[in-house]
Amino acid sequence: MRPSRGVVSVVHYGLGPIGRSIATLVAQHTGLASRAAIDVASDIRGTPLPQLIGAAPWPAAPVVVGSLAEADTDGAVIAVHSTGSSLALVLPQILELVDRRLHVLSTCEELSYPDRYDESVRALDEHARARGVAVLGTGVNPGFAMDFLPIVVSAVAPSVESVSVRRVQNASQRRIPLQRKIGAGLSPEEFRVRAERGSLGHVGLRQSASALAAAFGWTLTSYVERIDPVIAHANTSSGVGEIAAGRVLGIHQTARGSMDDRIVVDLDLTMAVGAADAHDLISLHGAAPIEVRIPGGLHGDVATAAIVVNTIPRLIEAAPGLRTMADISAPHAWRSSARAYATA
Amino acid sequence: MRPSRGVVSVVHYGLGPIGRSIATLVAQHTGLASRAAIDVASDIRGTPLPQLIGAAPWPAAPVVVGSLAEADTDGAVIAVHSTGSSLALVLPQILELVDRRLHVLSTCEELSYPDRYDESVRALDEHARARGVAVLGTGVNPGFAMDFLPIVVSAVAPSVESVSVRRVQNASQRRIPLQRKIGAGLSPEEFRVRAERGSLGHVGLRQSASALAAAFGWTLTSYVERIDPVIAHANTSSGVGEIAAGRVLGIHQTARGSMDDRIVVDLDLTMAVGAADAHDLISLHGAAPIEVRIPGGLHGDVATAAIVVNTIPRLIEAAPGLRTMADISAPHAWRSSARAYATA
Repeated sequence: MRPSRGVVSVVHYGLGPIGRSIATLVAQHTGLASRAAIDVASDIRGTPLPQLIGAAPWPAAPVVVGSLAEADTDGAVIAVHSTGSSLALVLPQILELVDRRLHVLSTCEELSYPDRYDESVRALDEHARARGVAVLGTGVNPGFAMDFLPIVVSAVAPSVESVSVRRVQNASQRRIPLQRKIGAGLSPEEFRVRAERGSLGHVGLRQSASALAAAFGWTLTSYVERIDPVIAHANTSSGVGEIAAGRVLGIHQTARGSMDDRIVVDLDLTMAVGAADAHDLISLHGAAPIEVRIPGGLHGDVATAAIVVNTIPRLIEAAPGLRTMADISAPHAWRSSARAYATA
Repeated sequence: MRPSRGVVSVVHYGLGPIGRSIATLVAQHTGLASRAAIDVASDIRGTPLPQLIGAAPWPAAPVVVGSLAEADTDGAVIAVHSTGSSLALVLPQILELVDRRLHVLSTCEELSYPDRYDESVRALDEHARARGVAVLGTGVNPGFAMDFLPIVVSAVAPSVESVSVRRVQNASQRRIPLQRKIGAGLSPEEFRVRAERGSLGHVGLRQSASALAAAFGWTLTSYVERIDPVIAHANTSSGVGEIAAGRVLGIHQTARGSMDDRIVVDLDLTMAVGAADAHDLISLHGAAPIEVRIPGGLHGDVATAAIVVNTIPRLIEAAPGLRTMADISAPHAWRSSARAYATA
């Protein structure tokens, strides 16, 4: 369909599970239209986007192409990017999108609060400014649950002396790649090896800790991250097959940032198959402590796709350059009515 | 004391309990300095601000004057204003501050989401733009608990079909004027009379409902507010004296906004002396429902003073004109270290 007036035309870059969830929300959104779809996976090339996301076909729907060079992005103003966690690896893709004068909203965890002293990060910022577009990494975590939400809640705190966030996710309800990422089904030894190699675990605690410290004006003098396996006490079924007792259900990962021996940032994340009591819990400590609890927890995949789509209008209006969640206007759900593409 | 580089110089307009709480936080904040203090109450005129807030004296502290005309606001960039709930009544004060090219952060409830079709509101907006300053009404409620926080949380919701917020405050822990405002100690008949006259009850549910509807793109076709007394079952002590069984402990106030017979905004507020189970509860209904609970609830007075102080840097950097919480960058606690004025 032709985008009507006021409809934002979107380029999809990366169509794994998260990218597809984003595409589904875009398809359902009255204010958005999909312009182009890009993914390196050869098995989905040539697939119409509606078919890929299990939606009824709609007119002029894009077909998945293997690279931005092959994509017709005419009229598009923003790219939603979801290909990887490592900034070094996805940076060329983001620069390519910026080259086309597209704003870029990425789920790349390392982009959510990148190191401003890193040369490639500064180059990205300068390039985006030069091209007049804004670039932002977001998602539920990092991007919201362990950083932006506690930062926003602190608005009603007279002071914050320290912050702790505890997040427990039941990985049974999450996508298969996530279950692999947390080591579900591995032996404890395999888990250790992969954890040391850095090929396993949640990426983003460092970014969340940095975002919190920056908001509250803290200079962390130490930062310690730790990752441990959550071990099955009984045989447990999962998306990656049956997990025998004694094998790994997932991760327990913590990050502690201190100022002069005082812990000011305390992040505690459990993502495990069958984890009981899933929840998010934010505690702001200070003169008037505040506790915020989200029973059941924010569902990682759903919430990440949602925050990407909800941030689109906020990023478009933001100042050009590399942005963080705390320096754009707060995103929110923006129109909730679905449009029926099938009958368009 | 002389404001050092980077310290924001603040004018206090209105020094009742909330204004004094704001002044206390300003005094404790490394990034802020009090430039002038204004209040119409004759009994505090001439009182040095430190004495008024029970703080140790500090050099060059302002003395309370009765009007802006008498105040030396040289170098000040922003006014924190806390004199009343009615926009019509406080508007001349705000215009006067804008005239002096001061940004204005006000706790006036009706300013938190004013009617843009109202002529005086448009005039205020134009005046602020002409003077190059931003004006914002904020506080914990309206301003946060029943509007901005649910709006921000919706960022991780794929869609919002309706929103409900329940807030229970134990008024025993609140300021005396608040206890009067909720009718504590009245007979049920007196309560009814005053409620009908509009001289009692919480002001702001309409603003919260409007802010929510605007964020989510809803046009409310009906809006119904209701206020009932909470009656004492036993004699209860309070800040306004002993409340006999059968008399009023406080208010139970609700607001419901509908679109085509479907309730989309459901606000439920209890503020009563001795109210048990104080809490805030936000429920976003939609494809992926989200519940956020704040056990104990955000303390109204503390949180209002905090959000005013925390919003100062965000308002200064905002675009000139009349702003709302949803169109400035999200405020947050910004430096937590206290400075010792006594030794300055």
